[in-house]
Amino acid sequence: MNVTNSVTPVEVIDEETVADLALGATLLGTGGGGDPRVGALMAQAAIREHGPVRVLSPDAVGDDGLVVPVAMIGAPTVILERIPGGHELDLVMRGFEHLQDRPVIATMPIEAGGINSTIPLVLAARRGIPLVDADGMGRAFPEVQMVTLGAGGVRAWPLVLADESGNVVSISDASDNAAAERLARAAVVAMGGSAVVAHYALDGQQLRDWAVPHSVSLAIAIGRALKRARAEGSDPVEAIGPICGARRLFTGQVTEVARTTQAGFVRGQLSLKGLDVDAGRHAEVDFQNENLILRSEGAVLAAVPDLISLVEAESGQPLTTEGMRYGIRVHVLGIPSSPIWWRPEALPLVEPRAFGYDIDPIRMEDSR
Amino acid sequence: MNVTNSVTPVEVIDEETVADLALGATLLGTGGGGDPRVGALMAQAAIREHGPVRVLSPDAVGDDGLVVPVAMIGAPTVILERIPGGHELDLVMRGFEHLQDRPVIATMPIEAGGINSTIPLVLAARRGIPLVDADGMGRAFPEVQMVTLGAGGVRAWPLVLADESGNVVSISDASDNAAAERLARAAVVAMGGSAVVAHYALDGQQLRDWAVPHSVSLAIAIGRALKRARAEGSDPVEAIGPICGARRLFTGQVTEVARTTQAGFVRGQLSLKGLDVDAGRHAEVDFQNENLILRSEGAVLAAVPDLISLVEAESGQPLTTEGMRYGIRVHVLGIPSSPIWWRPEALPLVEPRAFGYDIDPIRMEDSR
Repeated sequence: MNVTNSVTPVEVIDEETVADLALGATLLGTGGGGDPRVGALMAQAAIREHGPVRVLSPDAVGDDGLVVPVAMIGAPTVILERIPGGHELDLVMRGFEHLQDRPVIATMPIEAGGINSTIPLVLAARRGIPLVDADGMGRAFPEVQMVTLGAGGVRAWPLVLADESGNVVSISDASDNAAAERLARAAVVAMGGSAVVAHYALDGQQLRDWAVPHSVSLAIAIGRALKRARAEGSDPVEAIGPICGARRLFTGQVTEVARTTQAGFVRGQLSLKGLDVDAGRHAEVDFQNENLILRSEGAVLAAVPDLISLVEAESGQPLTTEGMRYGIRVHVLGIPSSPIWWRPEALPLVEPRAFGYDIDPIRMEDSR
Repeated sequence: MNVTNSVTPVEVIDEETVADLALGATLLGTGGGGDPRVGALMAQAAIREHGPVRVLSPDAVGDDGLVVPVAMIGAPTVILERIPGGHELDLVMRGFEHLQDRPVIATMPIEAGGINSTIPLVLAARRGIPLVDADGMGRAFPEVQMVTLGAGGVRAWPLVLADESGNVVSISDASDNAAAERLARAAVVAMGGSAVVAHYALDGQQLRDWAVPHSVSLAIAIGRALKRARAEGSDPVEAIGPICGARRLFTGQVTEVARTTQAGFVRGQLSLKGLDVDAGRHAEVDFQNENLILRSEGAVLAAVPDLISLVEAESGQPLTTEGMRYGIRVHVLGIPSSPIWWRPEALPLVEPRAFGYDIDPIRMEDSR
């Protein structure tokens, strides 16, 4: 998922661009991350009021410039019922700046998929600060430690949480990232299950070394390509292949969606009956918020950290696990993850074993 | 428990005074609050290194002077295994000052009984700041909201927690004290069950309106009187009666101690068989960390917020619930609580109904 020549870096995000971003972020959300359209409405309202958001290339951030990612944290089902107002974003940023000596020059998404791809736009518009064209996952992942930045030694703290009631909790010192995350999770539960968080602040050097670059532009390019394919009636998978390396791995009809909610996660399995070239075969997708493993007839076709995304076969509309229904015809796409995830410091955080599977990592070829 | 003419305000706390304070605080701990002798050893070490602690009368604190109480928070059993080093106290105070515009001029105990009566001395000695001769309970109570200061509208936040691993969590804004306490409790659990806390900061006016005045001097006076009585072989109850209004309510032998640990509290009942003037009668003391209710032959003899304290009959040594053993001969003493607890804003926090008893408050006469 390196940005190739086919992705033009975006320089400004206006209302229409937000819609493209949300569409692309649904694909990069790999079934989870929450439906970005809700966050998109908030971002559009903020841009309408305060003006478009300038996008900053990671290369343009100085080594002493502090970039602070903001996100929603908590159980996805709760997050969707408690979409934050701008107020919580103001509170975490004010709290964060109070703990810092350096000014915050920009914000950034912590993940490129799902609702958290659009939340930072609300802050950027309200504050008049730019959004850095990068993120800490290149997709969505279900657990807070599954971030390239942590693997690269970026500290999770100072970490500031705020909720809709105006409660503000800060972790100003922590023994390590695991402790910071354990404390943050406990606070989020006490805040009712979801909160706005600012954490993993990083400077230009850390950004260039460990963030996934140009993932905002990538999501926008994916969204635009899907929109164009739909308008033209052309093949959506062919439209996005050259942009993100997406390949069709299975085509089928949903025969069952088994879901349980445990400890703030939605876990389950999606069963598919093959159609067209896959007629006569079956496939299953395991998910924990996000899609983790695609298997067919006993063989693993794709697995984390690579992206497994489902699109509606006719329209190319990316599908979330929540939106999945019996009978839908889908393409299951595989998309190679950011190469950062294959670094030895990072892979243990997100390989199949990190999700409890006794499966060796298998890496998709990037065929762009 | 107003300080009467019989209590001389203490001006300086040296090593020997710490021992007297710890002895008196065991009585005011009403069975709970942790054994203050462990905290006393820490305070004595800090005073040996940094010099004696000056005691400041509440009347001497200006209206713009900020006083910050510090304490251990968490399950008493965990607290006793994790007595804080001075480091955690430094961390909470530094975190607290960072959230404030005003300098911290003094510290103060949040409770007059148990281990938290001596913890602030460690900070005061290390920092070279005075200790205010007051507290927020005039005794020990098991729950964080059971503090006169909260009843008087003093905010629980900013609230800073630190643990032995160096984790620092701050609540810089809260919707109300209940929210601040819920968030703090969640963080304490994630910190392993106990932490050092700085909260309920107050100015001179709030101190004079809502803190229990001169309770440090009172604890020291009680400790000195008990020590003298033991040395002279005189009656310990008679020795402390004129100081704190203590009265003997029952004399007996412990026949049973039933204890269960639930949700961080030690709950249970102590059964007594009467001796001497109480021969032939029985009594029971219910406790939740602290002693709550004394009953004999179906009648309630005393109840919270008044103090129910047990002393060993021969020596006058105050007894904690933890130190209670089958067969010990004890006097059960009643001590009138601070009159602040009988104000309409305060009583609902600590009357028997706050502990789940369907019993109207009964107020001991202050016979000093």
